[in-house]
Amino acid sequence: MQVMVDLCVVPLGVGVSVSKYVALCQKVLSAAGLKTSLHAYGTNIEGEYDQVFAAIKRCHEQIHAAGAPRITTTIKLGSCIDRTQTMEDKLRSVAEKM
Amino acid sequence: MQVMVDLCVVPLGVGVSVSKYVALCQKVLSAAGLKTSLHAYGTNIEGEYDQVFAAIKRCHEQIHAAGAPRITTTIKLGSCIDRTQTMEDKLRSVAEKM
Amino acid sequence: MQVMVDLCVVPLGVGVSVSKYVALCQKVLSAAGLKTSLHAYGTNIEGEYDQVFAAIKRCHEQIHAAGAPRITTTIKLGSCIDRTQTMEDKLRSVAEKM
Amino acid sequence: MQVMVDLCVVPLGVGVSVSKYVALCQKVLSAAGLKTSLHAYGTNIEGEYDQVFAAIKRCHEQIHAAGAPRITTTIKLGSCIDRTQTMEDKLRSVAEKM
Repeated sequence: MQVMVDLCVVPLGVGVSVSKYVALCQKVLSAAGLKTSLHAYGTNIEGEYDQVFAAIKRCHEQIHAAGAPRITTTIKLGSCIDRTQTMEDKLRSVAEKM
Repeated sequence: MQVMVDLCVVPLGVGVSVSKYVALCQKVLSAAGLKTSLHAYGTNIEGEYDQVFAAIKRCHEQIHAAGAPRITTTIKLGSCIDRTQTMEDKLRSVAEKM
Repeated sequence: MQVMVDLCVVPLGVGVSVSKYVALCQKVLSAAGLKTSLHAYGTNIEGEYDQVFAAIKRCHEQIHAAGAPRITTTIKLGSCIDRTQTMEDKLRSVAEKM
Repeated sequence: MQVMVDLCVVPLGVGVSVSKYVALCQKVLSAAGLKTSLHAYGTNIEGEYDQVFAAIKRCHEQIHAAGAPRITTTIKLGSCIDRTQTMEDKLRSVAEKM
């Protein structure tokens, strides 16, 4: 199952700056061969369900290993069976209506 | 990795009533042996990461099979390595401060 | 506009325990006369849009005043014009399908 | 209170294509003078709390007026009192760690 995901990872107990942990996450997602696009409040990810959620698990494991005792993450998960829609398709589709 | 999840599944292209699909999801989560608690805007789930996300995948597969061409889901995912905290612990912890 | 909201407030820079801040939020929501229902990963809220979001603003203000330098909050917001649906209606609707 | 918001609006009961409604939302946010940045699973918004949430209310009102009987929206809301951080600051901060 091909999915589009938006991921926002928030480590707790490590002070206010979370960018170090977001960068760690980006490396994990890249190493997993996933297509990603970072924005100011999360990361868009495109890929197979199993591959995406195996990578998100590694993000949590590595952020814990880097010193964060707790993590709270927000995920949006989209799947569709009527057609394949990439990140670019979604953006183009909105742009055409404006 | 033990996790606490909040799941809110929204099928698109099937009209306004989503309760049928939420009920389908509840059955999938129960069949997976996961501890769940339904609220008015989602479902709390407690379990092992791999087991929880395998069940969420089955929810998407079965909702698609039941006729929904697209699904957009919101997930909150919490993990911690400093202690184990159940749903009841979290609620009790807030109640004690009130 | 009547809305159903799910609110999950996460203060950053105050250690791992957030229950004190969740309790503070509950008091703000109650003082605003809003109907709420706490669950293990957030709080369901029912009310008028303006009243609900004025209360959420006060939650942020009071959590900052209580010492949290940053807050990241997740909100689900539902509105409908075809009928009024309470928290109880939503739960009953799912229960009937199970 | 200055806030950073991520907004994802999902109209229900209008079929599978939501891009028309997302475009409508973009116009409402622009008309409100808010700084926005669209991504594949939502829109980043920067502005004053009251102004941002007044605009989100208008988004719901106009999407209902355009024919959607129900809407379910996901919002991430960030506020901080220790410093001001723009969308660009957040992206730069992650980029520096990679």
